[in-house]
This record gives sequence, C-alpha cells and structure tokens, in this order.
Amino acid sequence: MKRIITVGREFGSGGRELGKRLADHLGYAYYDYEIISEIAKRTSLSENYIQHIIEQRPAVHFPITVARSFAIADNYWMEKNIQLYQQQEEIIKEMAKTSPCVIVGRCADFVLRDQKPFRIFVYAEIESKMKRCYEKVPKDKALSEKQMQKNIAQIDKNRSQYYEFYTNQIWGDKRNYDLCLNMTNICIKEIIPIIAQFIG
Amino acid sequence: MKRIITVGREFGSGGRELGKRLADHLGYAYYDYEIISEIAKRTSLSENYIQHIIEQRPAVHFPITVARSFAIADNYWMEKNIQLYQQQEEIIKEMAKTSPCVIVGRCADFVLRDQKPFRIFVYAEIESKMKRCYEKVPKDKALSEKQMQKNIAQIDKNRSQYYEFYTNQIWGDKRNYDLCLNMTNICIKEIIPIIAQFIG
Repeated sequence: MKRIITVGREFGSGGRELGKRLADHLGYAYYDYEIISEIAKRTSLSENYIQHIIEQRPAVHFPITVARSFAIADNYWMEKNIQLYQQQEEIIKEMAKTSPCVIVGRCADFVLRDQKPFRIFVYAEIESKMKRCYEKVPKDKALSEKQMQKNIAQIDKNRSQYYEFYTNQIWGDKRNYDLCLNMTNICIKEIIPIIAQFIG
Repeated sequence: MKRIITVGREFGSGGRELGKRLADHLGYAYYDYEIISEIAKRTSLSENYIQHIIEQRPAVHFPITVARSFAIADNYWMEKNIQLYQQQEEIIKEMAKTSPCVIVGRCADFVLRDQKPFRIFVYAEIESKMKRCYEKVPKDKALSEKQMQKNIAQIDKNRSQYYEFYTNQIWGDKRNYDLCLNMTNICIKEIIPIIAQFIG
C-alpha cells in the first residue's frame, strides 16, 4: 500500500470530502488547510493572510524557473507567493516523512514526486459541481447560477495557473495522475473502500 | 450495475486485455475485433480489407459534420471509411441492445452515449507501452526501440484523428470518461474485480 496519496481536484467536485474520508478509512493523516495553519504558526502571519496570498494566481504565464531567471517576478505579491510556496513545500515534505498521509491540492503530487505517491485527480460536470456548491451555502446567501458558474470557473483557472507556474505541468492532465475520477454520478462514501483497494 | 461498458485505450496500454478480462469477470459479452467480423459477414468484404480501410485515418481535420457539408470528403477512401463507420455504428447499437457487454475502442462511448455506458479510458507511460508491445512479438521480429516508439505514436495519432473526426470530441479527454486509469504500474488481473466494484 502506498503511504502517500495526493488528491488534485476541481472546485466543487468533492475532492476534499474524498480525501478526508479516504484518510479516515486508511487511518492516514489528512492534510489540506492544516498546511496553512502550520505556515501560520511558523511565520506568525495570519491564516487568512496566507490563504489570501496563496489564492493570488501568479500574474505571469511562465513556470517559476523561467519567471525567476528573467526577474519578471519582481513584485511584492509574487515574491510573497513564492516565499509561501517554498514554505508550503517544506512543510509538505516534512509531513509526508512523519506518517502515511492524504494531501489535498497544494501541488503535493509534484512536491512529493520522488516519493512516488498515489496520485488521484477528481473532476465533475459543471451541473454536479454547482449542485455541490449550493448544498454548502444557506439558501439566502446563494449566488445566481450564472455567478456561481463564473466563480467555479475562476477558482479552477486560478488553481490551474498556480499549479502550472510551480510545476511546469498541466493541471488535471491525466498523464500526471494514476487515477482520474469523474465524480458526477458517484457516491463518495461508497467508493472510498474501492479506491483504497485500488491503491493497495 | 451498468450493462454497457466502453474501453478507450492508448496502443500498448493493455486496454484489450482489460476489456476481455472485465467482460469474463462480469459474464458480459466482449466486442472488439468481433465487430469487424460482423461487418465482413454483412458486406462480403474481407476482414483484412475492412481493417485496412478503418485504419486509414481521415485525411481532413474537421469533424464529419463539417467535412460532409463542404463535400471535402469526396474521395474513395474517405467515402469507404464513412460507410464502414456507419455500418460499425449500427452493429455496435445492435450488439449493445442484445446483451450486457464490454466494447473496446471504435468510438463506442460516443455511439452509445444515449445509453449512458460506463466509460473507461486507459493509458500508460511510453516505457510501459513499449514493454507490453515487445512481450507480444518474437525477439527476432522485434523493431528497434526508436521504430517501436514511432509506431506507437503513429497508431495513437490515427486513433485520435479517427475518434475526433467521427465524434467531434477530443480522444482521451478525461471529461468524456467516468474513469481514467494509468496502467503503468498496474497488474491487470488484480484490478479487474476492483473495477467491477467501481462500475457497480
């Protein structure tokens, strides 16, 4: 059984829930927002501030190696973003050394590539992602369908640019994963033991 | 349990073996080359000739709807290819009506889209695909590594163009499948019961 499992996920496709349930099923540690908390502890920055910086998508369309060589990353947000990425990378490597774990997002499949993790990517049709998002917000705070669709697309665009900037790989490209799962018609609870067998 | 399963596959990734074993495991009919044989029976053309025509990748880069509207498909091979595709389509639909089945390749995921099949796509790293190909030919008939790699790429390019021509979808794009499996480190025998559970 692989001791490190990474989960890449489109927004609203159920990646967090899948990761958490899989970790519980296997008795593995689960890391997602925990990584932000750890950065906060080490830097004395607030979790909100860190999250905010990380969510700024890189403003350039080159991978980090190119961006740095040409010094085009020379601005405050970009530098902060790169610093936090490096901190995050360090923490992910430490966590993966400590115990078997499931890590959601955060380019973990790339960061831990030398450890050969089992790499899952989950995605879903837009209607399914919207349904999932609507279930999570109170009705009176729900966005219009158009706005919700736009937000989901924007978040995925940010994730894609962030991933490509730091890994020089295409986000969600099946070649970078061992298993890609279309969550549209899937009951997460039911597939957890099956995914666990797959990994074994 | 879904009664129709389609398997798209890169050349050398083990899709045929996976499809056959899955069909045996589930007690489903298995269709791959059987479709060619059926066309041969109905048309009195030889199986070799049919296979040869089908393997001609469409010479234009438009989907069939566009190609036909502009009458740019007006040549012998293209017309033969389209006729055989239509025959193939008809047979696939008949077969899928007759009994639960696993169909490998032949745009079956698209042809049977109204029946909502469980759609698998399998792929693998080039080294793994080459290894599988070498295992299937006697050593004295084996191609050089360079030639083998070139052949695999060419066959996949043909498959991709054939699929895109007839479906107007991108071949291997994870959005068109329920499950995408990287076969690089997988033992086919062992994952069959797990895939069967997935489909259930």
